[in-house]
Amino acid sequence: MGMTMTEKILAQHAGRDAVQAGDLLVAQVDLVLANDITGPPAIAEFEKIGRPVFDKDKIALVPDHFSPCKDIKSATMCKRMRDFARQHEITNYFEVGRMGIEHALLPDSGLVAPGEIIIGADSHTCTYGALNALSTGMGQTDIGAAMASGTTWFKVPATIKVELTGKLPKYVKGKDIILTLIGMIGVDGARYQSLEFCGDGVAELEMSDRFTICNMAIEAGGKNGIFPVDEKTIAYLNGRVSRPWTAVTADADAVYDRVITIKLDDLVPVVSYPHLPENTHPAAESGHIKIDQVVVGSCTNGRLEDLQQAAEVMQGRKVHPHVRAIIIPATQEIYKEAMRLGYIDTFIDAGAAVSTPTCGPCLGGYMGILAAGERAVSTTNRNFRGRMGHVDSEVYLASPYVAAASAITGYIASPEEVMK
Amino acid sequence: MGMTMTEKILAQHAGRDAVQAGDLLVAQVDLVLANDITGPPAIAEFEKIGRPVFDKDKIALVPDHFSPCKDIKSATMCKRMRDFARQHEITNYFEVGRMGIEHALLPDSGLVAPGEIIIGADSHTCTYGALNALSTGMGQTDIGAAMASGTTWFKVPATIKVELTGKLPKYVKGKDIILTLIGMIGVDGARYQSLEFCGDGVAELEMSDRFTICNMAIEAGGKNGIFPVDEKTIAYLNGRVSRPWTAVTADADAVYDRVITIKLDDLVPVVSYPHLPENTHPAAESGHIKIDQVVVGSCTNGRLEDLQQAAEVMQGRKVHPHVRAIIIPATQEIYKEAMRLGYIDTFIDAGAAVSTPTCGPCLGGYMGILAAGERAVSTTNRNFRGRMGHVDSEVYLASPYVAAASAITGYIASPEEVMK
Repeated sequence: MGMTMTEKILAQHAGRDAVQAGDLLVAQVDLVLANDITGPPAIAEFEKIGRPVFDKDKIALVPDHFSPCKDIKSATMCKRMRDFARQHEITNYFEVGRMGIEHALLPDSGLVAPGEIIIGADSHTCTYGALNALSTGMGQTDIGAAMASGTTWFKVPATIKVELTGKLPKYVKGKDIILTLIGMIGVDGARYQSLEFCGDGVAELEMSDRFTICNMAIEAGGKNGIFPVDEKTIAYLNGRVSRPWTAVTADADAVYDRVITIKLDDLVPVVSYPHLPENTHPAAESGHIKIDQVVVGSCTNGRLEDLQQAAEVMQGRKVHPHVRAIIIPATQEIYKEAMRLGYIDTFIDAGAAVSTPTCGPCLGGYMGILAAGERAVSTTNRNFRGRMGHVDSEVYLASPYVAAASAITGYIASPEEVMK
Repeated sequence: MGMTMTEKILAQHAGRDAVQAGDLLVAQVDLVLANDITGPPAIAEFEKIGRPVFDKDKIALVPDHFSPCKDIKSATMCKRMRDFARQHEITNYFEVGRMGIEHALLPDSGLVAPGEIIIGADSHTCTYGALNALSTGMGQTDIGAAMASGTTWFKVPATIKVELTGKLPKYVKGKDIILTLIGMIGVDGARYQSLEFCGDGVAELEMSDRFTICNMAIEAGGKNGIFPVDEKTIAYLNGRVSRPWTAVTADADAVYDRVITIKLDDLVPVVSYPHLPENTHPAAESGHIKIDQVVVGSCTNGRLEDLQQAAEVMQGRKVHPHVRAIIIPATQEIYKEAMRLGYIDTFIDAGAAVSTPTCGPCLGGYMGILAAGERAVSTTNRNFRGRMGHVDSEVYLASPYVAAASAITGYIASPEEVMK
């Protein structure tokens, strides 16, 4: 019986010839991640074990959620993680000023390769499936244990095959694909399942699209999302990953729970209305829903391509007087490149604020929190009630194209409306 | 009997031929300022009066302290001020993305001219004395009343004449002058007095130095600080202020409480130790006091020249691994210009975080709050206990040169030490 990509990676890391959905196993892991929220409690669990770290080169610690620190509590948590990193000489501790949002930073830093297993105390760790890795979020207790053991347990997830076919229309991006998919299957549509993307449509997608899609696998309840390796993957890995790696492919006779086909040609720019990512609607049919804030950034959509799309819309235009537009490059490198390409200039000329890399507003951390009654269009990943601030505020999820267009019009808008 | 600059401005605005120290009077004001902390309570006072605003073009509202908003409380306060601005059609309401730190933004926006009176619900409103204006901080109740009446009351302050002579040594800037002065006279050394700067040394000072000096007049307890108009003032005002203005000069027989002479040639780069700005010490004699954070920014030192100095030190160097360096351009325009000149590139290459304009860390707001036991060198204006975070953290005040040098070495350092 054949295996899916995820099953193959698990088998390899568990020293088994084959596994199937439902198996319980213990696997070696290639990288263990924590951030400034989850790191301190993970470290506390780790310290209870009383052993050294399993590999100081295979733990990544990124203070990205509340830093540069928003208050004394977050400063205390960051200090805890920093002190731990120094004590254990953690190679991949990323300090303020040398960091970025973890799920953009780690792959960009070459810490992820195809076939690897990455676990992180952050639900969006699933992002790295874009690179044909098995990556998934776990609780801080599991992460603390893995810091000592270099292993963790898995129940092998069943897999949903998502076949992407055809060509992407203009202004339709990875975010529209994943929001459309979540709209189809619901926020529990892939619960503890792997979302395996395939089909001729994959070649259409930039790496940034694939990162966005895998990033939001968790928003359908998925254990992970995963893509095959192609030329674009290899181009991305070149110059980033020097250690050997092998692409993982699904067997022709792999077993899937379900097959979903998405015709890319049929897609349109969409928006997920409050308060669930599954409330997906065409942006063009949103009517004139007035907004107060736009956020372009986060581990979902803070990459260079995302900033390019926002800049394309904002170029020569002005943010609506009633809108605060907040642009957050995901890493220092992306920031620098966006500056070189003139995007930051465009944002400032348009009247947008450009933040240092941080998760900030996505999780209601800081850098753009909403008051009661306020509405945001955001390229982030969750629009749960109160996610970005007051319990009576609203978050509409969208692509950078849609977010930027909405910033210009002052209401939820499709990019075509602004770009015509 | 002759008058000082401050006395002349008060006399003109009170419709009197002459005033002298100690007089009580009511004066017209040219601009009334509030921010996201002080605006909402000022507005509440204003609304009790039940009258319209005295002039919608002469009120400036700047959400700079906690915005882009750090939490629901600050978002609620910003919303209050924003709603007020829309209701009363306030011309000079500056939204996130189109704003900056008030005391850099207002003069740069042409809202301050020589001889004018600007009052603001922020203690560092005294900054604009650099432009030969009388500007001073007031409580929010007074500001709320002035929003309705366009007037406020003053007790005419006595004046200290500060004579600056000679030439500034390399790496010595306005911050060193004012910290040295406060070190000489103490944090109550100019209580309710005007600090009037004069002498041949004034010509040595860039406008940025003068803004820094006047900005910290309040840290000596001063009612205001004020400079005469010279070619540099005029060059600064050109293209910014189009309305007519007249330079105010002190009479030769003006009465001063005290005359202080500072020989610029004798000055050195200094640092004010915790927990008072008067604890001024030569930076070079600080020994190796280890630091955790450096902040370059704020209404005191977030101007283009300040960023230039920090970039000059950081160019081709790296921030010490144990230091977070946070650079905050004071306005969007300064940010853009710093980008054009390559400073932002330099900061990112050095490993510093570059923030969107905000007061943030200066007042312990956000964007770099200190944990217990942490130490910062900061170009901000106050090092009171707990000012930047935990009550057991420490802030050392310094110029951008000293702050940047310290970021590189990891301990409090004089710029010469790094630049040699």
